[in-house]
Amino acid sequence: MKRRHFVGGLAAAAGVAACSSDSADCGAGAASAERFEWSAVTSWPPRYPGMGMAIYNVAEQVERASAGRLKIKVYAAGELVPAFEVFDAVSRGTVEVGHDASYYHKGKVDAAQFFTAIPFGLNNAEMNGWLYYGGGLELWRELYDPHDLVPFPCGNTGVQMGGWFNREINSVDDLKGLKMRIPGLGGEVLRRAGGTPVTLPGSEIFTSLQTGAIDATEWVGPYNDLAFGLQKAARYYYYPGWQEPGPTLECVINKDAWASLPDDLKAIVDIACKAVNGDVAAEYTNGNINALEQLANDPSVELRAFPPEVLDYLESIADEVIAELVENDPASAKIYESFKAFKDKSTLNQRISEQAFLNTRD
Amino acid sequence: MKRRHFVGGLAAAAGVAACSSDSADCGAGAASAERFEWSAVTSWPPRYPGMGMAIYNVAEQVERASAGRLKIKVYAAGELVPAFEVFDAVSRGTVEVGHDASYYHKGKVDAAQFFTAIPFGLNNAEMNGWLYYGGGLELWRELYDPHDLVPFPCGNTGVQMGGWFNREINSVDDLKGLKMRIPGLGGEVLRRAGGTPVTLPGSEIFTSLQTGAIDATEWVGPYNDLAFGLQKAARYYYYPGWQEPGPTLECVINKDAWASLPDDLKAIVDIACKAVNGDVAAEYTNGNINALEQLANDPSVELRAFPPEVLDYLESIADEVIAELVENDPASAKIYESFKAFKDKSTLNQRISEQAFLNTRD
Repeated sequence: MKRRHFVGGLAAAAGVAACSSDSADCGAGAASAERFEWSAVTSWPPRYPGMGMAIYNVAEQVERASAGRLKIKVYAAGELVPAFEVFDAVSRGTVEVGHDASYYHKGKVDAAQFFTAIPFGLNNAEMNGWLYYGGGLELWRELYDPHDLVPFPCGNTGVQMGGWFNREINSVDDLKGLKMRIPGLGGEVLRRAGGTPVTLPGSEIFTSLQTGAIDATEWVGPYNDLAFGLQKAARYYYYPGWQEPGPTLECVINKDAWASLPDDLKAIVDIACKAVNGDVAAEYTNGNINALEQLANDPSVELRAFPPEVLDYLESIADEVIAELVENDPASAKIYESFKAFKDKSTLNQRISEQAFLNTRD
Repeated sequence: MKRRHFVGGLAAAAGVAACSSDSADCGAGAASAERFEWSAVTSWPPRYPGMGMAIYNVAEQVERASAGRLKIKVYAAGELVPAFEVFDAVSRGTVEVGHDASYYHKGKVDAAQFFTAIPFGLNNAEMNGWLYYGGGLELWRELYDPHDLVPFPCGNTGVQMGGWFNREINSVDDLKGLKMRIPGLGGEVLRRAGGTPVTLPGSEIFTSLQTGAIDATEWVGPYNDLAFGLQKAARYYYYPGWQEPGPTLECVINKDAWASLPDDLKAIVDIACKAVNGDVAAEYTNGNINALEQLANDPSVELRAFPPEVLDYLESIADEVIAELVENDPASAKIYESFKAFKDKSTLNQRISEQAFLNTRD
């Protein structure tokens, strides 16, 4: 696949030369007529609600804001490259853009996991504070630079749900032998708690849960879970999603492709990703409240809180898992130092603001 | 003041004619070379951290993304028009852009208050969900249309603090006779609880509190309050900010000015406001945690939670105040119906997500 399609030559020949008319604005600031046609690949089904819509929205806004000078054609998972191969495809320059979750790169770039979510980590507001103002995004860019990728935060699901269970979780003993679809660090925490984490693609979850091949699954939250029909395959809907308290999604751009953009198109891509970062969260907030209303009124569903001692136990294991990750990987150590310092300071602030306010709702 | 400066004529004469080279992209999508120089007025001091930075960030991003075709010069409060006259100045077309808080328009457009914050209303995540996906922004645009204004959500401070007090609040009786700087609906709630709400410009708050002319003041939260030095004028720092649980700031654009923009510049302004809406929140999240660390370590400051019965009492009064507003103003009634429906559905979702997750931090 050609990395870029230059239509600029033609346009230049036709006399697009803003500098000649207004010398005060010449140079880097002047709009270039060069046109770009990019491709984007994702790990999501086509136009999947919430997370999957992010890159379509980026593409649409970039095209409008650039008057068509930068067009991004979106390919859903499997249409051009398989899900979970987004990182490599964009890194190699097969395509210019990817939309994904950074924790899928575990094994390749372990430290990337901090930029989506870690168990008992940061919520959506905290992730944004850390990434945009607390040094997180600089660390992310530094981590991806050797892979020729420029990452942008681009969507957040908010606190996820703990998942759908066909077994009650009344104590830590109930985790023993639990066969659950739960990927990544959360899965490793479950394994150490005596459970059996399994990895399944989205398409196989429903049947596996319904047939009893697995006892439980986490997916996202009410908005995506209801659409998946998971309430028809399990009775207990547990909260909160300790494994993913505020997962950030990523838009990655190939470094050479990024460097080829004039400044104005770089600015357009940058603000479009920032806009969509918040937009996805807003879509989830609205989608979740409507889906939850349905689920809460479904007599076959029991909404349950994990017992505090189960959460405490899982958190203590999560601390161990993260400590090992940090011990074995210098990049993770550097990033976690920043992440952890932010979280430690943030906890009191969250307590006196969001938590104290939400407590007035009881 | 001239509303717009057309530099487009010159550029067109120099041959900016992208359509002649690529007919597939002709028409509304093609970039126009027309240039705009706009002015923006605000109700904030120059480059005031958080809320005051929003419009500078919009201006900077719009200028970069448009390659200088849309420049917005920002005037702080009093530099061109006084604070609190932003709405009228933009409505009349004296300037093209304003950045403000919609609840300042109380008395002129009472229903506008719902789009900033109401006591015990929506938090930041909920405001974004309601505005962008729950119909809130459409109602806001409808409300401002007769005033020739197009509003955009453009920043959020997050849950504010209850304020700085030189009297302890141990029961509802302690609210009686309390002289407190607290504007808007929150002030009305305090008045009905037996207190005396006063309105003071920011510049007079510190001295009034220090001299005992007032017993208490609310301002914003740790980030802005620390910079103001309020910890030197009062001992008790109460939370949560029941009066403003997630205030959204507004960018307003004069309707004719907006209509004059080509589609690509409209898209740029739209995504810049969306990007900055989240950016301000991220700045507050990071700023608050660092400021709170200092305040929590200051031996002269006591961080206090309002007693639950005080919050319950204030909420019951707030319900009365809002019921009266809704009874007397059809626009408020229509908007509150949508707002309240969103809040009612959202409460369970917040409880099982953000609140349940933050409870694991205890």
